[in-house]
Amino acid sequence: MIRDAQATQQRLLEAAAEEFSTYGIAGARVDRIAAAANSNKAQIYHYFGSKERLFDAVMNTIVSRTAAQVPIDVNDLAGYAGRLFDRYEDDPRIARLATWYRLERPAEHEQLDVLSETIRDELQQIRQAQKAGILPARYRPADLLNLVLHLTFLWAFVFPELRGQFAKTSRAHRRRVLTDAIKALLATDNTPASGKEGT
Amino acid sequence: MIRDAQATQQRLLEAAAEEFSTYGIAGARVDRIAAAANSNKAQIYHYFGSKERLFDAVMNTIVSRTAAQVPIDVNDLAGYAGRLFDRYEDDPRIARLATWYRLERPAEHEQLDVLSETIRDELQQIRQAQKAGILPARYRPADLLNLVLHLTFLWAFVFPELRGQFAKTSRAHRRRVLTDAIKALLATDNTPASGKEGT
Repeated sequence: MIRDAQATQQRLLEAAAEEFSTYGIAGARVDRIAAAANSNKAQIYHYFGSKERLFDAVMNTIVSRTAAQVPIDVNDLAGYAGRLFDRYEDDPRIARLATWYRLERPAEHEQLDVLSETIRDELQQIRQAQKAGILPARYRPADLLNLVLHLTFLWAFVFPELRGQFAKTSRAHRRRVLTDAIKALLATDNTPASGKEGT
Repeated sequence: MIRDAQATQQRLLEAAAEEFSTYGIAGARVDRIAAAANSNKAQIYHYFGSKERLFDAVMNTIVSRTAAQVPIDVNDLAGYAGRLFDRYEDDPRIARLATWYRLERPAEHEQLDVLSETIRDELQQIRQAQKAGILPARYRPADLLNLVLHLTFLWAFVFPELRGQFAKTSRAHRRRVLTDAIKALLATDNTPASGKEGT
């Protein structure tokens, strides 16, 4: 029975990832998720409590897996960004879910534990790398992390009107545009400091 | 009567901008838009045809205004990015609408005329500036434009778990992080060329 329950939850999470990545939180329909998972709405509410909590469960699963498989590498932030890019290319649902999350989740909502912890750890590693002279000290750690994370989504949401321009480019080319951009941000000899306001 | 019709359409566009920016295309409800505009669903379908076309009308209005008020400046792409940032800060609905659009609009859907034309013109200007040595030739024009446009959204969709880090920073600081990033991408002396694949 426990195994059945786990299998059902697994199917629900899988169906929910598909539904939320396509329609977002507001647009997702619990009955479609239930149908796709051979389950029913009552089970969804029993296991997850609400549509919002089901979305959080999907995000937590993805963030945990990503944090484990693609840990930050402060010695090579460009490589780190490239590996995140690879993940989004291999599974385009990830970038979409992360974007719905940022669009639809109000600031006052409970935050995701795994993501909070991952970000705290990444900021700490950046701070230490700055002290060690591995990363440029001119950035606030949060500014640098935000720049890197934001740039990893460079190719996930190109305007439809610009997409035709990339039809003939390869994945390797797009990856290199991203990693080169990160390298440019870290180059030691350009642009004045952005100040250390708010640190 | 004509004036009445225009006033109604104007109210509908205004209410639609609010509804779509909050809920996206799938999540938006035509009856809420009608109610907020003191109108009714029949009028929406009469004037705009469908919810999707109403969204397009909202986007066209915003893109036209933005293209007119914030034209690209190939001599100062950082300044251009900063002015787009200012627009999103002044009216956060713009960045949200642009993101719903990129998330929800399938590739095969009819594109927006104004946006297509704006992008074509921007690419042409970038190409000419590269020939004139004003912009680095190592970028494909579309890659550079995509980088700049993407970076303008740097602050629009920070992960909730990272937002606390920016609570004490000023708008001027965030603007400078963005414009410095663009300057770093354009610096002449860093990172190898990304190749000219697909041009």
